[in-house]
Amino acid sequence: MSVVRPSGRMPEQLRAVTLQRGFTRHAEGSVLVSFGDTRVLCTASIDNKVPPFLRGKGEGWVTAEYGMLPRATHTRSDREAARGKQGGRTLEIQRLIGRALRACVDRRALGERTITLDCDVLQADGGTRTAAITGAYVALVDAIRHLQQRREITKDPIFGAVAAVSVGIFNGVPVLDLDYAEDSNCDTDMNVVMNDGGGFIELQGTAEGHAFRRDELDRLLALAETGIAELFAAQREALAQR
Amino acid sequence: MSVVRPSGRMPEQLRAVTLQRGFTRHAEGSVLVSFGDTRVLCTASIDNKVPPFLRGKGEGWVTAEYGMLPRATHTRSDREAARGKQGGRTLEIQRLIGRALRACVDRRALGERTITLDCDVLQADGGTRTAAITGAYVALVDAIRHLQQRREITKDPIFGAVAAVSVGIFNGVPVLDLDYAEDSNCDTDMNVVMNDGGGFIELQGTAEGHAFRRDELDRLLALAETGIAELFAAQREALAQR
Amino acid sequence: MSVVRPSGRMPEQLRAVTLQRGFTRHAEGSVLVSFGDTRVLCTASIDNKVPPFLRGKGEGWVTAEYGMLPRATHTRSDREAARGKQGGRTLEIQRLIGRALRACVDRRALGERTITLDCDVLQADGGTRTAAITGAYVALVDAIRHLQQRREITKDPIFGAVAAVSVGIFNGVPVLDLDYAEDSNCDTDMNVVMNDGGGFIELQGTAEGHAFRRDELDRLLALAETGIAELFAAQREALAQR
Amino acid sequence: MSVVRPSGRMPEQLRAVTLQRGFTRHAEGSVLVSFGDTRVLCTASIDNKVPPFLRGKGEGWVTAEYGMLPRATHTRSDREAARGKQGGRTLEIQRLIGRALRACVDRRALGERTITLDCDVLQADGGTRTAAITGAYVALVDAIRHLQQRREITKDPIFGAVAAVSVGIFNGVPVLDLDYAEDSNCDTDMNVVMNDGGGFIELQGTAEGHAFRRDELDRLLALAETGIAELFAAQREALAQR
Amino acid sequence: MSVVRPSGRMPEQLRAVTLQRGFTRHAEGSVLVSFGDTRVLCTASIDNKVPPFLRGKGEGWVTAEYGMLPRATHTRSDREAARGKQGGRTLEIQRLIGRALRACVDRRALGERTITLDCDVLQADGGTRTAAITGAYVALVDAIRHLQQRREITKDPIFGAVAAVSVGIFNGVPVLDLDYAEDSNCDTDMNVVMNDGGGFIELQGTAEGHAFRRDELDRLLALAETGIAELFAAQREALAQR
Amino acid sequence: MSVVRPSGRMPEQLRAVTLQRGFTRHAEGSVLVSFGDTRVLCTASIDNKVPPFLRGKGEGWVTAEYGMLPRATHTRSDREAARGKQGGRTLEIQRLIGRALRACVDRRALGERTITLDCDVLQADGGTRTAAITGAYVALVDAIRHLQQRREITKDPIFGAVAAVSVGIFNGVPVLDLDYAEDSNCDTDMNVVMNDGGGFIELQGTAEGHAFRRDELDRLLALAETGIAELFAAQREALAQR
Repeated sequence: MSVVRPSGRMPEQLRAVTLQRGFTRHAEGSVLVSFGDTRVLCTASIDNKVPPFLRGKGEGWVTAEYGMLPRATHTRSDREAARGKQGGRTLEIQRLIGRALRACVDRRALGERTITLDCDVLQADGGTRTAAITGAYVALVDAIRHLQQRREITKDPIFGAVAAVSVGIFNGVPVLDLDYAEDSNCDTDMNVVMNDGGGFIELQGTAEGHAFRRDELDRLLALAETGIAELFAAQREALAQR
Repeated sequence: MSVVRPSGRMPEQLRAVTLQRGFTRHAEGSVLVSFGDTRVLCTASIDNKVPPFLRGKGEGWVTAEYGMLPRATHTRSDREAARGKQGGRTLEIQRLIGRALRACVDRRALGERTITLDCDVLQADGGTRTAAITGAYVALVDAIRHLQQRREITKDPIFGAVAAVSVGIFNGVPVLDLDYAEDSNCDTDMNVVMNDGGGFIELQGTAEGHAFRRDELDRLLALAETGIAELFAAQREALAQR
Repeated sequence: MSVVRPSGRMPEQLRAVTLQRGFTRHAEGSVLVSFGDTRVLCTASIDNKVPPFLRGKGEGWVTAEYGMLPRATHTRSDREAARGKQGGRTLEIQRLIGRALRACVDRRALGERTITLDCDVLQADGGTRTAAITGAYVALVDAIRHLQQRREITKDPIFGAVAAVSVGIFNGVPVLDLDYAEDSNCDTDMNVVMNDGGGFIELQGTAEGHAFRRDELDRLLALAETGIAELFAAQREALAQR
Repeated sequence: MSVVRPSGRMPEQLRAVTLQRGFTRHAEGSVLVSFGDTRVLCTASIDNKVPPFLRGKGEGWVTAEYGMLPRATHTRSDREAARGKQGGRTLEIQRLIGRALRACVDRRALGERTITLDCDVLQADGGTRTAAITGAYVALVDAIRHLQQRREITKDPIFGAVAAVSVGIFNGVPVLDLDYAEDSNCDTDMNVVMNDGGGFIELQGTAEGHAFRRDELDRLLALAETGIAELFAAQREALAQR
Repeated sequence: MSVVRPSGRMPEQLRAVTLQRGFTRHAEGSVLVSFGDTRVLCTASIDNKVPPFLRGKGEGWVTAEYGMLPRATHTRSDREAARGKQGGRTLEIQRLIGRALRACVDRRALGERTITLDCDVLQADGGTRTAAITGAYVALVDAIRHLQQRREITKDPIFGAVAAVSVGIFNGVPVLDLDYAEDSNCDTDMNVVMNDGGGFIELQGTAEGHAFRRDELDRLLALAETGIAELFAAQREALAQR
Repeated sequence: MSVVRPSGRMPEQLRAVTLQRGFTRHAEGSVLVSFGDTRVLCTASIDNKVPPFLRGKGEGWVTAEYGMLPRATHTRSDREAARGKQGGRTLEIQRLIGRALRACVDRRALGERTITLDCDVLQADGGTRTAAITGAYVALVDAIRHLQQRREITKDPIFGAVAAVSVGIFNGVPVLDLDYAEDSNCDTDMNVVMNDGGGFIELQGTAEGHAFRRDELDRLLALAETGIAELFAAQREALAQR
């Protein structure tokens, strides 16, 4: 098979992934994640309050907000703060990130605290939501460690790891970790969020061109599983430092 | 297996599905779709304009808007018009409906026209987005027929049918077409949109409780395929009338 | 006098009026009211709270919200939730409905509860606000009965009935219950809200073309009185069922 | 009859009415109108454009905007600009003012121009909308004169005069031109807009306490007619100066 | 030096300044300030609450809001309430007014109260923000006197006076108190806020055309000092009356 | 004099200043500027359009937008996009940045193009607006060079350089380039924008505690001049690379 991905990558090849902890200094967790040219700053902020629907229940909350700097993209987009509202795509992505990260947190062990994961895209080249989830996990762990070091919580609320990757069918071939050149020209695009127990947390597949068949789906899922395994390794390595 | 679904349905059993065409008289297509107690009014409106990004390209556009009447639900929700913005869930659903319906339309054959599918939930009992997609397809076909009868278009822009259903794991058992009682208590919830060629258009699976395994996913997809086949039959029957 | 109303109705003739109780199942009161082709879904929702300005005063509140589905009309209107605000006409109508219904409620007997009347126009053919008031009254009574059956209130807070109709001068002739074809071409348009004691609750007359004389006003008011008497009969009949 | 109005006025007595033309210098018409302690600055601004729905039709437009300075009232109200939207009451009043003034303008003679009447309440003591209509008429005439003096229009677009007053039932007695002390305690409140041909342009009556009977309505209308006659005299006198 | 200012004023000459106390009657302080044709209504409103960040700290707050009537200017501007937000210029000015007035108030002596200074421009001819600060000071003193007369506070929270003026370089010559004709054509524009101890509270200089040199700055500051001395005299005179 | 600045710096000592060009790759100019721990990403984006008020005049426009990531600060701030509006401080700063940069651009030589300077604070430690101006200048020059390299413009529109620094009185001593610890505790805070011809472009001084005297002002301005001279050197050095 001699598919030529625009980047020259092999179909099952991730982009270079880096996870730089402590990128900024105020947040309890702060990670600059790169999936190739996609760079997302993920910060985790602890607040000793919970949203109204959880007050007094002894449980914490994990939520996410997503943004893109106006010139993170090829052409400048309007600043959402200036337009006066977040777009549908933004809301959809931040809801996804929040759900994904809540899936690895024991909210009772967290206690009545909210951890907000801010994922701000400094540079976009496809896959910003999967990079955000993968990086936000590391920022979340750092924030939890901060609580543990200050002995504010005793039981570790993190169970398992969470990471995400995109897969798609590009020129008829299933490929892993789509960059912008692939993403804007592929037939099918799927974002897969998994935990390190091999379970699926989210699956969002969209047929951009023609509908995808069941056998294509199976091949995409297999690709995603291998890619996410590498991401878990990268997360573990990053968290082992210092 | 003796699972008891709250409704007494069998795991692979859809709710009663009805598609009432011509429910209101102004719209070019107007369908009241019911999936059991979930009732959504889907209208298709033709406008002889396209959004700015398509002007002069000789292509049409299909888009959707979604709303829920404040008391469609068990307890009254705020009216989005009064709050001054559509929520993230609303935007996410209407983007999904739009993408799903565009997947069966040849936009060049449609010409420079926009068809807007308004899906307003009169009564909610789970599965409003899948009912909306299934009903909006029938409203869309009626609007296209209207254009054909007036000889405004020559080539039929509709290729294939589109329908959607939810599946989930309730008390450990994969079940089809979740109602509210199931939806609010299930571990995994997946919305599946397919075309009548057996292809997947959208797949959105979320692990609410624990992550789902690959074999669970396979069983859910199989259930969805059988349910959607029944929905295509209901659509064909509805469109055959008059 | 041989005026021909577009609908063929006599000047003093109402359109067919129906009041279908229990149209949806979650609301404490739910009525689909039709004045000919005008169809409005009126739901009454009980909330055991009052707005801040009434807290601790031992009184209840009755309020209304009004909306129109985007394709209730001949041409599609923008969705107010998408535009981010309710228009002036919407606010004006919902304030009118709220005032009208409060005029028949003993708010002290209601206790510290709010009843919200949501009036959503499914199909518009003129007279949506008068249909909404007439239907919302029936939904309100059903919600109050619900409270009485659960013995949450002892004294009946409803005194008298409230109904509304439009009158206008069409081609020089005073006519009752304007439909859209008349409404958009008449010289004077008046909405009249009365109680069943023969008292006026609201009177809103607007000269669209030329100003109306005192004697025209008198004839319009007389027409309204006869029409509203028929509406009270329809409300009583609807409420007598079941 | 020995009713004591809080102000000591007779039932059929207007407050002192003044109409000060040229109150500010930039606007084509600028009138400070006082109905007793109610003071409204009404400016008329000419713009050589019309709203989109009138473009190319050879007709003009007259519209109004209404505002209240935050401390025009006994207790400070929020600034609508700071809250980010105009309230329902504001929108209702400015729609009324616009309709009322359009009723005396030949929009074809005006040509493709918009005249905007800004009515800003500097001090409120009841009856701001009727003072605004009465004052805005004078500002409108000044703006039209300005166009005539510059020979931009030939035919006078003004036909007849427009003025407005409130009437109500206070302690059982019909009274003219309610001030705040009366307005906040009366049973029925009606705003009447008339032209100087004796025709009614708008009638908005609301039963605040108990519904009003037909004979009460007749007495209120008679009071309004005498009050408006005095207002026409005041307008003529103001316009005769300079 | 024979500079001709459009108004014929000498470079160091203020416009006629008037401070009319009690311009409206509801507010605790109400001053119509005129700097020539610039007229701003400044009201001071007392509220027995403080913003959340000050609750329970035993301190008061002084804040300002600024607005311009749509036709205060040569051509009509959009009404900010209708546009749905206050512009950047408005926010900047009201923040400046608030800071300036807080600089002469002992917030502990004020107690847990908020004084809101509403500065609404009725007519604009340049220098609205400096007129607003100068007038708002007098309204603030009147509101404080009101509290003292009612013995709600014992210690006088006002220390010193605050006034403001603009200076600029017009046709190469430093001039005092720019009117609109000068403001829209000058090279440098500076707003200076001082207290009556000769201290600077705010200094905001902007080079519109070319950058200003240090010696120009010195001459502008000297001009501002003389102008503000006259404004303090006008404030004292106004406050001495009644 | 033995003042101890919290950072140990000398009164006239800047923080370490770095200007990293090409920080992101899509923008025509992209600079990460650091003033100590304050880090701002400044991008310059070229658009071949101008705002409506400049259309057809043959001139270009330079404008700025400013934002702060939610966790750039010690405690997390709300995301402005989520709140639905930019705050007054944000608008004030971005207006300042835009004015400052326009002061060094010949807009006629730029032609009908807009250059938007997005200044997004990744980490805040005081002085974000002065860092933003200093960094945005370098990004602007890079964008202009990009136009020149593509021969889209012939005449260089940049005349002179622009940089900014803050000065203030901390514990009675004038100091240069305030960091957060100083900024939140100083008596007077002034932002100074200059060009490299020694002229002042903006001067914004605020007395936080007590008003500042004329001699203090003089010392602050002298400090600012020396600091800005160092910033011009840093800009030149950065621009000389590559």
